[in-house]
Amino acid sequence: MSDPRFSVVGIGNAIVDVLAHVDDQFIIENDLIKGSMSLVDEAEAEIIYSKMGQGVECSGGSAANTIAALASLGSSVAFIGKVKDDQLGKVFHHDITSLGIAFETTADTDGLSTARCMIHVTPDAQRTMQTFLGACSNLGPDDIDEAIIADSSVTYLEGYLWDPDLAKQAFRKAAKIAESAGRMVSLSLSDPFCVERHRRDFLDLVKNHVNILFANEEEIMSLYQLKDFDASMEAVHADCDVAVITRGEKGSVAVRGDQVHIVKAEPVTKVVDTTGAGDAYAAGFLYGLTTNQPLNMCARLGGICSAEIISHVGARPGVSLKNLVEEKIK
Amino acid sequence: MSDPRFSVVGIGNAIVDVLAHVDDQFIIENDLIKGSMSLVDEAEAEIIYSKMGQGVECSGGSAANTIAALASLGSSVAFIGKVKDDQLGKVFHHDITSLGIAFETTADTDGLSTARCMIHVTPDAQRTMQTFLGACSNLGPDDIDEAIIADSSVTYLEGYLWDPDLAKQAFRKAAKIAESAGRMVSLSLSDPFCVERHRRDFLDLVKNHVNILFANEEEIMSLYQLKDFDASMEAVHADCDVAVITRGEKGSVAVRGDQVHIVKAEPVTKVVDTTGAGDAYAAGFLYGLTTNQPLNMCARLGGICSAEIISHVGARPGVSLKNLVEEKIK
Repeated sequence: MSDPRFSVVGIGNAIVDVLAHVDDQFIIENDLIKGSMSLVDEAEAEIIYSKMGQGVECSGGSAANTIAALASLGSSVAFIGKVKDDQLGKVFHHDITSLGIAFETTADTDGLSTARCMIHVTPDAQRTMQTFLGACSNLGPDDIDEAIIADSSVTYLEGYLWDPDLAKQAFRKAAKIAESAGRMVSLSLSDPFCVERHRRDFLDLVKNHVNILFANEEEIMSLYQLKDFDASMEAVHADCDVAVITRGEKGSVAVRGDQVHIVKAEPVTKVVDTTGAGDAYAAGFLYGLTTNQPLNMCARLGGICSAEIISHVGARPGVSLKNLVEEKIK
Repeated sequence: MSDPRFSVVGIGNAIVDVLAHVDDQFIIENDLIKGSMSLVDEAEAEIIYSKMGQGVECSGGSAANTIAALASLGSSVAFIGKVKDDQLGKVFHHDITSLGIAFETTADTDGLSTARCMIHVTPDAQRTMQTFLGACSNLGPDDIDEAIIADSSVTYLEGYLWDPDLAKQAFRKAAKIAESAGRMVSLSLSDPFCVERHRRDFLDLVKNHVNILFANEEEIMSLYQLKDFDASMEAVHADCDVAVITRGEKGSVAVRGDQVHIVKAEPVTKVVDTTGAGDAYAAGFLYGLTTNQPLNMCARLGGICSAEIISHVGARPGVSLKNLVEEKIK
């Protein structure tokens, strides 16, 4: 098999983030669950936006953040996701292509506007998100470019993509193409509530289609409905070739076959905003994996990227991750 | 005369900034003049945007930044400026009203889109700007709310507003209303190139209408076409009640009648992005002036606000300026 054109193709919700700092009172008053992502319709989005303070807009989306970080690491990557041809859609398109990422999904010319995620960052650097999926609801199987999937070492899917109905079919089609082409499929579980919403489907995917799984402690325990972390690790170990569990300030655990690596978190001077921490971790890990590095190094690379992202506001790298990694790993 | 409802009403271009980090090579390759603002049409804006890297969008505009900083200081303020009723126009409207600023200018429903300013931040923290004025071109005399102007201690105008033709008439109308109501008129010269473009008009305004002038060294020397800073200071002293000249890391000079105050710059740990430094200075100074503080304290307040703005990316405060000032001045 010839070398694939892309190391990773990401499929995900194409979202523009609106980030604002709020106090804890804001979370309480608006009945939000701190640290979670909830879905809202356009009317609800308008209401919550009107309550938010001055914000900053930047391109986001979970898998898109991972792909952006991979581009910053120097990987050849592609992204599939749906925007509308409106101002925020143009911003999303600009930002992703400016990083050298192949992004050829046709933008909608009518219907719902480009997706927005309102991110409330509390003083403890936690983020609470409310997403209006908008045009993302129109991503379907026809948007899956067979040539790109077949020509990527890894097809990376975000769990959030399971929320819009049509996208599931896109998701399944992509996984099938990747498998037929002898490529790897990777899934990030995204959010414990997302796991709650789609547990049965996710379990099927993990058992039958996913080669590389990313999750955090809560998500993996929710997936297997186990209260014990070690038992969850055993379960996922049996189901996936590679499983990577992130544990916040406790670092991460990566397992593959009989290898188990427990890797400490990278030190961070000040945690400013945890938005995109998991996305960046996945990027570092996949970068390591697709450049044939040992599993513990993959986990360390994940940690380095994640530490960079949480040290500033916003979910995409503020510096070249390639340079950062070269500096850290000598 | 009863206490006015607003301490300051700002009239300016309503702009959404697109900020991206670039290297010096980008400035050279695109024939830009570092530190300047140039006007571009929509087609040119598209071209330069396509060359820019991943950006961050946030509400901007010179006078709007000043008004936002005044709101953060706790002043009662208003803003007049024109957006279109598009996604970026909604972002601008949201951000300014979320700060408690009165903003009632009717948004355009068709025609040019909301103004954008592409801001290229170089490693030396300098910013080079390219502005597509868009809907700002439609701000006219009808948008000047006589009641608001008459009910504001200071009407603050940005020099950039002299660029769109119709806005000049709005600008003149506002100055006349303020004068008739016995209020003060303040002008910021904005940019040495803006002074070049409109020198004769600005000289007339400064001599006949402006009570409080803000400029930096380059702008004031350009206004009077003098090569000597002290001679320029003498000239402006004769023309305006209050003149405030900012000098970057050298601090600022404020003159009123026989008072001359030379105030040092506030120390800054790291200058990250100078976008909005002058706007924030004007806010601090006007806050002092409208709360009847001594002239040297007004200049110090300007310096404190300016130091906050240049310590992070973006032209609006990252913290409550009210708290910051209370902390600094005990």
